[in-house]
Amino acid sequence: MEKLQNDLLLRAARGEQTERIPVWMMRQAGRILPEYRAVREKAGSFIQLATNPELAAEVTIQPVDILGVDAAIIFSDILVIPEAMGLPYIMEERVGPIFPNIIQSMADVEKLRIADPEHDLKYVLDAIKIVKKELSGRVPLIGFAGAPFTLLCYMIEGRGSKTFSKAKKALYTDPVLSHALLQKITDSTILYLKAQIAAGANLVQIFDSWAGILSPEQYRIYSLPYITQICDAITEVPVTVFAKGAFFAREEMGKLNCEVIGLDWNMDVAESRKLIGGNKTLQGNLDPCVLYGSFDEIRNQTKIMIDAFGKQRYIANLGHGVYPDTNPDNVRCFIDAVKEFGSR
Amino acid sequence: MEKLQNDLLLRAARGEQTERIPVWMMRQAGRILPEYRAVREKAGSFIQLATNPELAAEVTIQPVDILGVDAAIIFSDILVIPEAMGLPYIMEERVGPIFPNIIQSMADVEKLRIADPEHDLKYVLDAIKIVKKELSGRVPLIGFAGAPFTLLCYMIEGRGSKTFSKAKKALYTDPVLSHALLQKITDSTILYLKAQIAAGANLVQIFDSWAGILSPEQYRIYSLPYITQICDAITEVPVTVFAKGAFFAREEMGKLNCEVIGLDWNMDVAESRKLIGGNKTLQGNLDPCVLYGSFDEIRNQTKIMIDAFGKQRYIANLGHGVYPDTNPDNVRCFIDAVKEFGSR
Repeated sequence: MEKLQNDLLLRAARGEQTERIPVWMMRQAGRILPEYRAVREKAGSFIQLATNPELAAEVTIQPVDILGVDAAIIFSDILVIPEAMGLPYIMEERVGPIFPNIIQSMADVEKLRIADPEHDLKYVLDAIKIVKKELSGRVPLIGFAGAPFTLLCYMIEGRGSKTFSKAKKALYTDPVLSHALLQKITDSTILYLKAQIAAGANLVQIFDSWAGILSPEQYRIYSLPYITQICDAITEVPVTVFAKGAFFAREEMGKLNCEVIGLDWNMDVAESRKLIGGNKTLQGNLDPCVLYGSFDEIRNQTKIMIDAFGKQRYIANLGHGVYPDTNPDNVRCFIDAVKEFGSR
Repeated sequence: MEKLQNDLLLRAARGEQTERIPVWMMRQAGRILPEYRAVREKAGSFIQLATNPELAAEVTIQPVDILGVDAAIIFSDILVIPEAMGLPYIMEERVGPIFPNIIQSMADVEKLRIADPEHDLKYVLDAIKIVKKELSGRVPLIGFAGAPFTLLCYMIEGRGSKTFSKAKKALYTDPVLSHALLQKITDSTILYLKAQIAAGANLVQIFDSWAGILSPEQYRIYSLPYITQICDAITEVPVTVFAKGAFFAREEMGKLNCEVIGLDWNMDVAESRKLIGGNKTLQGNLDPCVLYGSFDEIRNQTKIMIDAFGKQRYIANLGHGVYPDTNPDNVRCFIDAVKEFGSR
């Protein structure tokens, strides 16, 4: 078995004692570092970068070297799964992802294939292998995928949206189509995460980015059962579930067959711990906007966060991805503050 | 004192017994009715319509005649306050509001004036007077304003945003400027709501549309104190506070000096009732997407909602504004279902 020099993340995830709180940041690869922008420039576009294993590996490792985080997360996008199922997307500058074709009928769902990761997503798996080799055990590597409901949102809506009302309309008007689509995404996602693990991912995270647009009842019908299937299927490595905005589902989250639950910054820590229970590691949840503040403010807010979470069964992170215009020096201040205040 | 033929909304707001649950919908004026679109066409633009008292009054009354709702809400926009303070906005088709000038420094805040409603917002007050005359007591008229924090978001960010990270950055980097701006907005808003009431508004609602982007701690610092000031100042008519996404502040909401708390569809009804307490009327909270469903589904979900809220201290509504592409027949189905299931 692989020997990691720094396995804080994995021990914290499994609920083992750690001498220090591990820390990493959602969206740490890409977005903020000038070194990332240089590679992105070289690649041409976001998608050209994400599909180039050498370059994707390079930007994956940058935050480990430059920021001192305790884990790498593979540089990729949750939308590679729809693409691998037969629904490609383009990434439009200043707009975000756009799907030229969307799911409108059961015939469209039937035309989708179950993703074959070794074939359709080989570029991600190759990037993971390169990262693992170049990291040579310094820190663990995190793999990830979007939650089925969040992917359904894009596949029906065709693009980002504040309300995803078109996608939600499908839930109310065509539950049969919705469940068929969710099941196909789930089957694809399980294969994909298992392939990431086989390629070397040490932990996988499921991002339910649009969980917060559902009512508690709909979340129970259209999202949780599919996340449950994924958690039950992944037994090889620890699993983290991060459902942004799903404050109403924290109690159910505590019953998932996973190791870590991510919190956003709206969620009170003590209340979340109570609802989720003591058998899960918690991850989060600094407001990304705190990193716009002074070093004093960043250190102060980080200390408040650590005091609220405690030092065991805890992985420090932001409550959402780091914002693109964050100063890397402020990010480093946050990482260093966790290391200082988070030691036993 | 004015005699209303249908005062269900006001009695429910004040916690008095009602023979039936009152119902209206956020954004009922504008957005969905073909009759509205015809007037909008005639006016030219959204702003030309909003600033034309005769036409604004006409679209305000349409839902009362056409949909049978138990209240009218004045057709206007929360952004008229920034405009009256000296920060005009334009409404760009398919983009939303844009402020050519934004608040960037304390000097910018100092340049803002406290709104003088009788002068700067005379067109709204005139519209209210026309509505009152034309309604001639059929149903109450609701006035409204944005919560100071939500208005700050637009005044600093300059446009809509998923994260309002620029506005939130100001909270962390310049609390003095933020509080000065919030106080000026609050002072303007109190004068504005009082002027609406003097012109004839029977209840006023405060919309904190972006409450959900704050952490519980920041909400306590930057939003609640200003909503509290407004609630304390408005003693003439019942006040409704609707803070979308502020699930974490429900307990504090229960202590506000107001009559009604609005809930969005993420908020569980029984839990909200427990957190807010029995001294407030609740308003909400059907997912607007339910109205995309079949009549059976709409009736079924409306019944579930009413069973959860009960028939007293309750005003039926959606959990957010009705979506523009909702079929008016489906809206009518919802209104009728409340009237059917909501009678004693």
